[in-house]
Amino acid sequence: MSGEEAPTQQQQVEQQQQQQQPDGDPPAASDAPQEPEEEKPISVRALVLTGYGGYDKVRLQVKTQKKPRLQPGEVLVRVKACGLNFAELLGRQGLYELLPAPPVTMGMEGSGLIEAVAEDVKDRKVGDRVIALSRSGMWQELVVVPANRTFPMPEQMSFPEGAALPINYMTAYMMLFEMANVRPGKSVLVHMAAGGVGIAATQLCQTVRDVTVFGTASASKHETIAQGGVTHPIDYRTKDYVEEIRKISPKGVDIVLDPLGGSDTHKGYSLLKPMGMLVVFGAANCVTGQKKNLLAMAKTWYNQLSLNTLKLMQANKAISGFHLGYVTDEELFARTMRSLIELYRQGKIKPRIDSCFHFEEVTDAMKRMHERQNIGKVILLPEPKKEEEKPEPKAEEGKNVEQNEAAVDGKKEEATEEAEAEKN
Amino acid sequence: MSGEEAPTQQQQVEQQQQQQQPDGDPPAASDAPQEPEEEKPISVRALVLTGYGGYDKVRLQVKTQKKPRLQPGEVLVRVKACGLNFAELLGRQGLYELLPAPPVTMGMEGSGLIEAVAEDVKDRKVGDRVIALSRSGMWQELVVVPANRTFPMPEQMSFPEGAALPINYMTAYMMLFEMANVRPGKSVLVHMAAGGVGIAATQLCQTVRDVTVFGTASASKHETIAQGGVTHPIDYRTKDYVEEIRKISPKGVDIVLDPLGGSDTHKGYSLLKPMGMLVVFGAANCVTGQKKNLLAMAKTWYNQLSLNTLKLMQANKAISGFHLGYVTDEELFARTMRSLIELYRQGKIKPRIDSCFHFEEVTDAMKRMHERQNIGKVILLPEPKKEEEKPEPKAEEGKNVEQNEAAVDGKKEEATEEAEAEKN
Repeated sequence: MSGEEAPTQQQQVEQQQQQQQPDGDPPAASDAPQEPEEEKPISVRALVLTGYGGYDKVRLQVKTQKKPRLQPGEVLVRVKACGLNFAELLGRQGLYELLPAPPVTMGMEGSGLIEAVAEDVKDRKVGDRVIALSRSGMWQELVVVPANRTFPMPEQMSFPEGAALPINYMTAYMMLFEMANVRPGKSVLVHMAAGGVGIAATQLCQTVRDVTVFGTASASKHETIAQGGVTHPIDYRTKDYVEEIRKISPKGVDIVLDPLGGSDTHKGYSLLKPMGMLVVFGAANCVTGQKKNLLAMAKTWYNQLSLNTLKLMQANKAISGFHLGYVTDEELFARTMRSLIELYRQGKIKPRIDSCFHFEEVTDAMKRMHERQNIGKVILLPEPKKEEEKPEPKAEEGKNVEQNEAAVDGKKEEATEEAEAEKN
Repeated sequence: MSGEEAPTQQQQVEQQQQQQQPDGDPPAASDAPQEPEEEKPISVRALVLTGYGGYDKVRLQVKTQKKPRLQPGEVLVRVKACGLNFAELLGRQGLYELLPAPPVTMGMEGSGLIEAVAEDVKDRKVGDRVIALSRSGMWQELVVVPANRTFPMPEQMSFPEGAALPINYMTAYMMLFEMANVRPGKSVLVHMAAGGVGIAATQLCQTVRDVTVFGTASASKHETIAQGGVTHPIDYRTKDYVEEIRKISPKGVDIVLDPLGGSDTHKGYSLLKPMGMLVVFGAANCVTGQKKNLLAMAKTWYNQLSLNTLKLMQANKAISGFHLGYVTDEELFARTMRSLIELYRQGKIKPRIDSCFHFEEVTDAMKRMHERQNIGKVILLPEPKKEEEKPEPKAEEGKNVEQNEAAVDGKKEEATEEAEAEKN
């Protein structure tokens, strides 16, 4: 569970290197901008999914490679922080169809410094602090992405904040403002209100006057989410959330954001007021144990809500599905990111960092999210852990650590459970 | 097909009188406001659905009755114009489940003059020009409705305009602004764009900047709907509207308003852009002939779109159903009517009256709508036809004719086809 496997897997690593080019652009085809420079190989730490299964399938590997060449329109980013998403837990179990087959580097969002730009890229320059998006491959120190998939970060935004913003906030924003239509006076049910999307949705609801947020989370998180804007925190573990909501609002709610699927989707639909909308954006109920659970999947899929339009007419209700991975509209991405960065600048939203884990600790990170211990975003840091003894301290890495450390505003928790996680 | 049946059906008429009380309040229970006045019976013309079937099931009857007594909160309205809706065509065929069983007076919207108010009603007075709503029973000269189901009409609004506003415009308004989320730059597909809801939807889309309207209608209506604001009129009879829309907008449209059902719902769904919404608000494809057509119904229902939420997620699409009859939120009704009357006042919407038919001509009216000859709203007028020889001219009626005639701004068409309609 560390970089020590790297030497024995040299060839595998090099194969991966091509696959890991975001959006599948093979670097070999590059006959574009020439930056010959020093052709000596560099070493890049990456988290590689080596096969489908439990936590141990994600391994830290060190790739020795040439510095990537850039195609027109591309930039090279030195990654300072990456986001962990539920999609990666699904991906590890083989349940995320948009992820290329293993071996593959996962990761869809990150932040860092521009290290090189293709000759034709005029609106980014070396040293720019940016948020970067990619379909996969962000969990490594160096990534090549199209320049239009990078977004300059405001001065006051830390790298973990930058890495925490895209997936959760774009998901919440598009659901609330593109699909549903949150307006003053409306009510919203946010499941997993202490999770990344839950916190983003809660904050975005606050940008609209007089919106009531019902948020489910375990009791220990209620104080935090209430401070964050949840009007009515509900402990889904000890109470029936449908009953709890009906007590407060007998007619139900206007919008339900449902990342759970299965029977919870039915409950959400039943809770909708007339003219209300249910947005299903996940099937977290599929994921129980650490590995793919066929029974949980079957149960969730069997219970998946299916309605014909006549039923919807009699109820005056709307159902919709949202999956950021299937959004291909670049203009929509760009517009949404601009809106979010502007909201951040105005102080209206601020990603809550639950914890930051170094790449070596990715198991702890995944476990924390899987067991829903987090309140807010779980962040992965590419640079090696410093303070403790490390199996293989790499001399050439960690150069920019001081800068990155300065940007970390979240706190790392539960690093002591590392040993326990290893048993998986 | 006239009032001549009335004398022989006296008892039936009186039974109906109770059922016709809007929202089922039995007038017999009335021990409220006393307005004893003259207790001499009055004569009321009403269009009564006598059984399910073809055009001939709707008959003009003259009821001789006492002047209705008002319960608290009610007003008595002398109806000057009523709207004909697709729901009544369905109702006549026995396909509108919200209509009480025959014999029953149909009609959900009208306009007229307040003729009496219950003692506790302070915000309406005798002589007020109002729009009135009811679940059924509006197709008669005198109706009793709750005062909060009446809405004062602006000075410049004619009675036919007032009768044309509620159902079509509330339907379009709630679909576009409550369920879907029309915003600047969006595109909308409006089926039957020359019909009542189609014209209302087109006008309401104009109230938002830069909205593209694709509207289907037969070619002869294109000039009119284009003048009314349809950006791209499409002749659905001679062309495949899906192909036509794709030619203009390869990615499809953001919102589809679908009153057709069946296979057209599938087409509409396929036309949606990501983040788009399909609103199904009818199953007009069920209605082919004049009477209930089991084959058409079966086909439409069999083809009714049914989707589970996983499919919706992969497509990033929303489906919803709308049926004004199932909306029970009085506050929503009132708010929507206020918005619509304000938009009328500002000149942003104006009901287009296709034609006005006297009660005697109800067959022509239904036929005109059934055969989709209308461009805009078909209106029914309670007062007897004057200019031609009538089977039973009622002396005590027609008092307010001059006022009503003045208000008619639509033109009556095809009255000469009356004879043909009688053969049904």
